[in-house]
Amino acid sequence: MNVFVNPKQTIEELKDLRSLTGDEHGAQRVAFTEKWTIARTWLREKLEALPVEVHTDAAGNLWATLKGQSEQELLMGGHIDSVPNGGWLDGCLNTLTALASLRRIIEQYGTQPPVTIRLVDWADEEGARFGKSLFGSSACSGTLNMDEARGLTDADGIKLVDALRDCGIDFEKVKDSGVELKNASAYLELHIEQGPVLLDLDLPLGTVLGTFGVERHAITFHGQAAHSGSTPMNRRKDALLAAARMSPEIYAITERHEGVCTIGSCVTKPGIVTSVVEQCQITLDQRHLDAAGLAKMLAEAKQASADFAAAGDVTVDWTRLWQIEPILFHEKLIELCDQAITETCGKTHRLPSGPLHDAAEPARVGIPTIMMFVQSLHGISHNKIEDTKEAHLELSVIAFDKLVEKTIHWLTDSL
Amino acid sequence: MNVFVNPKQTIEELKDLRSLTGDEHGAQRVAFTEKWTIARTWLREKLEALPVEVHTDAAGNLWATLKGQSEQELLMGGHIDSVPNGGWLDGCLNTLTALASLRRIIEQYGTQPPVTIRLVDWADEEGARFGKSLFGSSACSGTLNMDEARGLTDADGIKLVDALRDCGIDFEKVKDSGVELKNASAYLELHIEQGPVLLDLDLPLGTVLGTFGVERHAITFHGQAAHSGSTPMNRRKDALLAAARMSPEIYAITERHEGVCTIGSCVTKPGIVTSVVEQCQITLDQRHLDAAGLAKMLAEAKQASADFAAAGDVTVDWTRLWQIEPILFHEKLIELCDQAITETCGKTHRLPSGPLHDAAEPARVGIPTIMMFVQSLHGISHNKIEDTKEAHLELSVIAFDKLVEKTIHWLTDSL
Repeated sequence: MNVFVNPKQTIEELKDLRSLTGDEHGAQRVAFTEKWTIARTWLREKLEALPVEVHTDAAGNLWATLKGQSEQELLMGGHIDSVPNGGWLDGCLNTLTALASLRRIIEQYGTQPPVTIRLVDWADEEGARFGKSLFGSSACSGTLNMDEARGLTDADGIKLVDALRDCGIDFEKVKDSGVELKNASAYLELHIEQGPVLLDLDLPLGTVLGTFGVERHAITFHGQAAHSGSTPMNRRKDALLAAARMSPEIYAITERHEGVCTIGSCVTKPGIVTSVVEQCQITLDQRHLDAAGLAKMLAEAKQASADFAAAGDVTVDWTRLWQIEPILFHEKLIELCDQAITETCGKTHRLPSGPLHDAAEPARVGIPTIMMFVQSLHGISHNKIEDTKEAHLELSVIAFDKLVEKTIHWLTDSL
Repeated sequence: MNVFVNPKQTIEELKDLRSLTGDEHGAQRVAFTEKWTIARTWLREKLEALPVEVHTDAAGNLWATLKGQSEQELLMGGHIDSVPNGGWLDGCLNTLTALASLRRIIEQYGTQPPVTIRLVDWADEEGARFGKSLFGSSACSGTLNMDEARGLTDADGIKLVDALRDCGIDFEKVKDSGVELKNASAYLELHIEQGPVLLDLDLPLGTVLGTFGVERHAITFHGQAAHSGSTPMNRRKDALLAAARMSPEIYAITERHEGVCTIGSCVTKPGIVTSVVEQCQITLDQRHLDAAGLAKMLAEAKQASADFAAAGDVTVDWTRLWQIEPILFHEKLIELCDQAITETCGKTHRLPSGPLHDAAEPARVGIPTIMMFVQSLHGISHNKIEDTKEAHLELSVIAFDKLVEKTIHWLTDSL
């Protein structure tokens, strides 16, 4: 029996969800808020209509399980939560496409597929309210820093711990959710790209190689305030001059090593029109899929800052704000994802993911993981104008389902 | 009879004034405040002890007049007000040195010198409280913008108009002070340099050629916010990159044209570590003694900003914040000042003034004007560490008095 996934139903469901939880400013499904709970209930009702076991784990992640002939589990899903004023596809496209595949599997295999199939809707991927992304997936993988998370509050001063309690979650027990992963053999996730790579290549779909490692630093140059009228140019200790020279330099660094570097903020003190800048702080965000490449980019930025400081008779110091290592996806699943895409639309492309995703969490604890990207119009995300052509959305549902089927076969073959 | 000025007395008086109106943070003689009134009363008592007529004009400027054989008037002085936490010499050195010369003239010529001699203490040179410098001198010269000044308030919301009334000054009549200048034939002012030029040349004194013209602009680059992880470098519209390239550029511009240029402030939006900068606003302050040089510096900065914007796929716009033309001092008085300095300490140096001074006001309405600078240790002003070696202070009192005498002779010869 040849059974096919139903992409048109997925698009209808995406639109229904948009009507239910969005407004004129975009999607409003911020985790641990009312709109998110509405979205969750809506999804849960759809799952409960299927012959699957549905429950929420100790971290608030929603699971739907279709027991298979093997205890091995194929996980698929993502997150229904959004940033405030977010796009309509990030990330609910992943949970609803997983729902489509779950339906297709039930239709094809009945209630006993070759391996156990599980849909997961992770709690709070975005971290929009409390500033900590990948909350549910990192609790589940065990990488969540409990001491850091315990202290988090939202803009109104409400503690994460209390917001969780209101949702029936005991913060101190969130890592008990780790039990959900004990038989996990693969994790699959579809996501809108959030960048312009596939758009520029005019390709609907791509295979994600992994998520970038990130080095995030504040760099402060210290010079001397001096009167803008009475201080000759050669007597200046201009903190801004040294900092400014970092901006073209990070473009040169990525030219040599690939990856991406961003100076997102520049703050000057005293910051008045009539004074040479005494202190200039910039932030640097560097990302690379290769740990050695990332280390080289960081080392070269540090050297450049020291050189510019010395040349300008100022000093410089660095403070690390955050870092994470690159997380590579599974080689075999990369191959299967390429095949699924190629069979669906003729051509694929491999690309890294700049943003982090829930998929990083199962991947970093050794579960074979892969993501598929669908083209993003405008290359924009976290914005109400985020969009993808409906034809591409349909292709993504079809290709993702092919990837699911290929993964079932791979897991079965390896039994 | 050979009569000499008494520089040691001037240094004693400077120290007395410091004790009377300074604290551990520096000088506190902010115009139209209590400490300024105390300083003014102290100065007035010293003037009233001499055979001179003393009065305050309609703008609050303090005048002491020694009627001469001619109606031609030689004006000399400056301002006793300071910035908050200011240096002990800026600007009271000028009024107290003028006082020393006034005493010497009385001793030498009695009560009828060849020309009329007037000491002036301008009200509110610094503009520290209301943000408008050269208040008293610009009211007197007639260049004060009444509409602008009428709206000024201090940090506590007190209006300039009301603060003036408390000091017995009717704002609407301040330009009546213009009558004081009707017989002015020369204006002489001594000031601490406030920069490092004489320090670097190891010279005690210099002749000031004039005050820089100033062009002051806000320059805003408009790009596009984009995710720091998902946006390839070649797809970015990075407002900071274009703005940052202006910083080394202004050094190149001054290399070609002399003058000075300063980017004193840089503000980035959204200004977060994870986003490419959408909007970057910098301020540019350009100063040159030559109007054509200033115009060239401005034109080249505009061209550079347009080039950097085009290269970076962003746009740029300029808003003028303020401008003033260069004000050149009087050729004959420059010569006399050089002579006075050379006779006093062997060597002089001609330099422009980056900061504005009261002297700009009589100069811009055509009164022959000159300033003399004395070396500033550290090249620093508007700071409690501002200082000048006592030996240099003594030389400055002597040289200034020689300049006064030479000017009397020049005015007499031209009768």
